Amino acid sequence: MEKQLLDRSKDKALFTPGPLTTSRTVKQAMLRDLGSRDSEFIALVREIRRRLLEIGGVAGRGYEAIPMQGSGTFALEAVVSSTIPPGGKLLVALNGAYGRRIEQIARVLKIDVLALAFPETQAVDPQAVALALERDAAITHVAVVHCETTTGILNPVREIGAVVRHAQRLYFVDAMSSFGAVPLNLADWSIDYLVSSANKCIEGVPGFAFVLARREALLATSGFARSLSLDLLAQWKGLELDGQFRFTPPTHALLAFHQALIELEQEGGVEARAARYRQNYRTLVEGMRALGFREYLAPELQGYIITSFLYPEDPNFRFAEFYARLNDKGYVIYPGKVSQGNCFRIGHIGRIFPGDVQDLLAAVQSTLAAMGLDLSRPQEPCAVSL
Amino acid sequence: MEKQLLDRSKDKALFTPGPLTTSRTVKQAMLRDLGSRDSEFIALVREIRRRLLEIGGVAGRGYEAIPMQGSGTFALEAVVSSTIPPGGKLLVALNGAYGRRIEQIARVLKIDVLALAFPETQAVDPQAVALALERDAAITHVAVVHCETTTGILNPVREIGAVVRHAQRLYFVDAMSSFGAVPLNLADWSIDYLVSSANKCIEGVPGFAFVLARREALLATSGFARSLSLDLLAQWKGLELDGQFRFTPPTHALLAFHQALIELEQEGGVEARAARYRQNYRTLVEGMRALGFREYLAPELQGYIITSFLYPEDPNFRFAEFYARLNDKGYVIYPGKVSQGNCFRIGHIGRIFPGDVQDLLAAVQSTLAAMGLDLSRPQEPCAVSL
Repeated sequence: MEKQLLDRSKDKALFTPGPLTTSRTVKQAMLRDLGSRDSEFIALVREIRRRLLEIGGVAGRGYEAIPMQGSGTFALEAVVSSTIPPGGKLLVALNGAYGRRIEQIARVLKIDVLALAFPETQAVDPQAVALALERDAAITHVAVVHCETTTGILNPVREIGAVVRHAQRLYFVDAMSSFGAVPLNLADWSIDYLVSSANKCIEGVPGFAFVLARREALLATSGFARSLSLDLLAQWKGLELDGQFRFTPPTHALLAFHQALIELEQEGGVEARAARYRQNYRTLVEGMRALGFREYLAPELQGYIITSFLYPEDPNFRFAEFYARLNDKGYVIYPGKVSQGNCFRIGHIGRIFPGDVQDLLAAVQSTLAAMGLDLSRPQEPCAVSL
Repeated sequence: MEKQLLDRSKDKALFTPGPLTTSRTVKQAMLRDLGSRDSEFIALVREIRRRLLEIGGVAGRGYEAIPMQGSGTFALEAVVSSTIPPGGKLLVALNGAYGRRIEQIARVLKIDVLALAFPETQAVDPQAVALALERDAAITHVAVVHCETTTGILNPVREIGAVVRHAQRLYFVDAMSSFGAVPLNLADWSIDYLVSSANKCIEGVPGFAFVLARREALLATSGFARSLSLDLLAQWKGLELDGQFRFTPPTHALLAFHQALIELEQEGGVEARAARYRQNYRTLVEGMRALGFREYLAPELQGYIITSFLYPEDPNFRFAEFYARLNDKGYVIYPGKVSQGNCFRIGHIGRIFPGDVQDLLAAVQSTLAAMGLDLSRPQEPCAVSL
């Protein structure tokens, strides 16, 4: 514990929803101490904000990028707590734990909230959202998770946006694990607020998250904030005033993020990153199927961010042992989070390439052999009741 | 902007209240990607928490160390928002902007708050606190800033603690810029909650802060939290349950902090660090006086963390130019924050040694010459009305 390893090759490969594996150059960008009032740092933050708007497709289209200290959940809470007016009501259309978290944030803040819950194996249905909005005129805001990391399902954010716009409500998208890897356009998709994090598909290090906000909507939130730290409008005003954060920013994480944004551009932008992640996903699923595993979701619902696999039916399969053995080999996977079904998850985002996925598959194969498991016998296609 | 410098020697020396200059080895500890569920990371967090209790003098004495994502203000808000019960009332005994910030946090949270304000040039008076508590039985909590970074004044936290204990109220200390450099003992000083940050006197990088809490007081706060992200009790319970953070931790900042704690120990602990900072302070003040500057505070009130200097009376002194010229030479100082008096501030904490302070003094001297200023003429001892 006392000795820090400097060799990244000694670190495990992270096949998780985050923290993720990042490039060596992203980490090396942190080997500096910049003052938070320094002109170089202020220019760096400005550049980060500009690039985020570009990735969201809204450079010069009336949107603002606002970094917020803390984890992604802090930025989600910033949006809920400082953009919903007193007397406002939030509809959360959800199909997993991260939608539930937004609902929970509203409950803790004593904001009126309605959960429109779908099974974890189904996408959120825009028509059901439309109906809910029709039935309840008190709803002012609608929230949905883009890629629900609970399962890896991709929700139809664009179609829900059309419904929300038609009903003239405000629209909030949790794009934590999709932004930077799933092409989207906030203006065209009618998104008023979008949240993502430094340590997801942009491949920076954790330490802050960010909100993209439609400026006109944001400016109308004066006096709504229920927190000093998580006050979105005040955070934006501070950055606009003199380019500085109101409270000490994680300068090193911002340096890393700036480098990560450059590397995203060098890779070819969101489309190219999407292509790599999709290739990771295909490599993984084909390999896992060949080893006898089955996915939890129907393929047409599955995104290319993270995949849930069912526990095999073999009674000798014990996830804890499977996890530990892979971990010992240097591959970190993730436990399940779905409420119905015994699953584990494998993420395919971060500085991971199809070759790394093949290495993981080889490790899975040898782990199965060491555990005395042979999953290649025919199994039931789906072990859980949907 | 596109090119990241890897040579720390190219970075400016930060004579500020933070972000601070950190050691190269602290930054190098971030050249890794650890999974947040990884046993190595969990052990690292446990070790960090253990060492923080030791620094607070309360290892095995009924206290808990709770890291909280975000800046120091986030941790301050976590204490105010999740440890004061509904109907509770906070007394903030203050003499500067950081005390005012605690008051402001309470106001935003709609928590009843009373500000007991002292001039910025005076320490908080424990007897005045005693009187305020005697007069107002509704007050449940008392907050004070240890080193008020507005001026650099050190408040009598121990003496106030005796008063608060006698009055049987709960006691909250903002030790943001003192913890790790000013010896203290939470139990002996009757402190129930103490907040500090990774990027102050422990000399880690910014990205999280931490709370030291008396366990019995903390356990009595169930249901008080006014936020999901900043819920102190839930954060502690999560860490106790499985050693993991509830929400993505800034893994790299925690790696850096662990290394910083080791380097604090190697330096000789809090006493040795205090000695270095005191030497920095003495070197600075002697040098600045010789150049004709005067401090804002009376020496007996001045801490050894950061020092406020009065603008010289020479009408040719323009702070913006003075700051920019020093900045160009690679020395970052800080503007003033006091409301009464034209001051600037020079911090003497972080990975800064007396030799660095001497380099700064040489730069100040040549800057004065370049600006055509000669302050060695006799001046009024104090340019502001106190």
